[in-house]
Amino acid sequence: MKIDAQPFESLVDDFQQRVDAALERWLPQARVNPIRLHRAMRYAVLAPGKRVRPILVYATASALDIDLERVDGAAAAVEIIHAYSLIHDDLPAMDDDDLRRGRPTCHREFDEATAILAGDALQALAFYIISHDPQMVQDDTARLQMIEKLSLFSGSRGMAGGQAIDLAAVGKTLNIAELETMHIHKTGALIRTCVQLAAHSTSKLSTTQFKALDSYAKCIGLSFQVQDDILDVTGDTATLGKTQGSDSARNKPTFPSIIGLDASREKAQELHRKALQALSIFGEEADILRYISAWFVERTH
Amino acid sequence: MKIDAQPFESLVDDFQQRVDAALERWLPQARVNPIRLHRAMRYAVLAPGKRVRPILVYATASALDIDLERVDGAAAAVEIIHAYSLIHDDLPAMDDDDLRRGRPTCHREFDEATAILAGDALQALAFYIISHDPQMVQDDTARLQMIEKLSLFSGSRGMAGGQAIDLAAVGKTLNIAELETMHIHKTGALIRTCVQLAAHSTSKLSTTQFKALDSYAKCIGLSFQVQDDILDVTGDTATLGKTQGSDSARNKPTFPSIIGLDASREKAQELHRKALQALSIFGEEADILRYISAWFVERTH
Repeated sequence: MKIDAQPFESLVDDFQQRVDAALERWLPQARVNPIRLHRAMRYAVLAPGKRVRPILVYATASALDIDLERVDGAAAAVEIIHAYSLIHDDLPAMDDDDLRRGRPTCHREFDEATAILAGDALQALAFYIISHDPQMVQDDTARLQMIEKLSLFSGSRGMAGGQAIDLAAVGKTLNIAELETMHIHKTGALIRTCVQLAAHSTSKLSTTQFKALDSYAKCIGLSFQVQDDILDVTGDTATLGKTQGSDSARNKPTFPSIIGLDASREKAQELHRKALQALSIFGEEADILRYISAWFVERTH
Repeated sequence: MKIDAQPFESLVDDFQQRVDAALERWLPQARVNPIRLHRAMRYAVLAPGKRVRPILVYATASALDIDLERVDGAAAAVEIIHAYSLIHDDLPAMDDDDLRRGRPTCHREFDEATAILAGDALQALAFYIISHDPQMVQDDTARLQMIEKLSLFSGSRGMAGGQAIDLAAVGKTLNIAELETMHIHKTGALIRTCVQLAAHSTSKLSTTQFKALDSYAKCIGLSFQVQDDILDVTGDTATLGKTQGSDSARNKPTFPSIIGLDASREKAQELHRKALQALSIFGEEADILRYISAWFVERTH
């Protein structure tokens, strides 16, 4: 199927602006003590970024006819979790990156100790938002389910575990299944969380619909990473906002390094097709989700 | 007033064993992937420690006649948050400590990257426990309040903020008010959380009782730190399980360095008296809390 991208591009722009406003509301002010820590938190989170994860929260909410203001908190929370993970991943003891989102990484702009604490405080802030946001949901049980999902999928059996597997894999020869396992944790888990947080914001969803959305999320979580690996080979540093070739330079296994560039592109397309298939039980209300799946595999940065 | 310490010493032992069992249940198994990360999480949390924070959760629950199994999750969660903060505080970019709880610090035993990720994953686990624990509370609203408190008091306006103020203070001359502000955040906030989490586990508490318990917690949170500073001067490394004199060696402001050792001891006693005063609306059911306040200022490690 072919979707007219134009209205969705504009919708995605709206989502980006919407989450930026929510982040601005939730982040501590830079003039409030401890100032340096708060400045570092704002620097890392408010840096220009694609806002992929909050966009996915809003897109899912939009497909399910949920008021967007009910998911502003969830959208801010997932972006904040993502930002904290980037701060820590960039540290000298981890990936040792100097550039992120086109600017010096948090520990380069501030210092390592501040970067570590900014990440820690951001993680706490994400859970504070979901537990506290008065606009979010009426139902406390749903809110608890959201916290349960976010904590499970960002912890040792999700995102943080994926980063540990990633670090252990440097210089090793992985097969494609092992590489996928790593990414399913490192990137995929938080992408799934985005869709699930929105899904938990309505009580009208059937189990079948929930599972279909989760299947979709699993596919695009992986296709996003395949495309990331492709761009690490084919992109340029200015467009990416991070150092091009940094994965291969660090001898990290990537999809192109294991199965080659062409097979990686085919893999991304196959995941895109599977994502669309998972959405087949939904009508055109889910076109925004279809558009996002296409965006993930066609993006150039 | 004089309390017979003996029965409470035995009760505190019970609390220690109880939280150790809860921690064992909640921590990921060391044989589960990612193995190294899970080993590091267990190493840091299960290290022999005083378990001050969970003891305070149980003691408050006990004073309020709350079934202890309803606060096992909260007790485990606060100890896990404390353990994550110690892992990160010990990192080379922060306090650069080699010894903790009588053993090599987490980044010494494993490596820096694993230590950072173990801390991150532990923070997520704490929120997972409170959102998930089926034994904890019947009332989802109370559970959300607990998550709200824990996230607020461990974030940039609590524990993580206190550590940022602490790092900024190295080599600076602080006055006593500034030093107190630092400790109220760095240690005090999580101590208050312990008491509040237990208090949120019952619906029978009046606002007056809640405020009294919170006043008590504020006093002992600070007296605990004053005594810590005193022990940094007067204790020895073997008894402390961490390097004696490490604060003064790092040129960190402490209570003895600002007001002297004698005035620090008087300060600790004054806070103890205030803590007892705050508990005056409670009968002998709160004797365990009175004992803990005495223990905090009389302990030798």
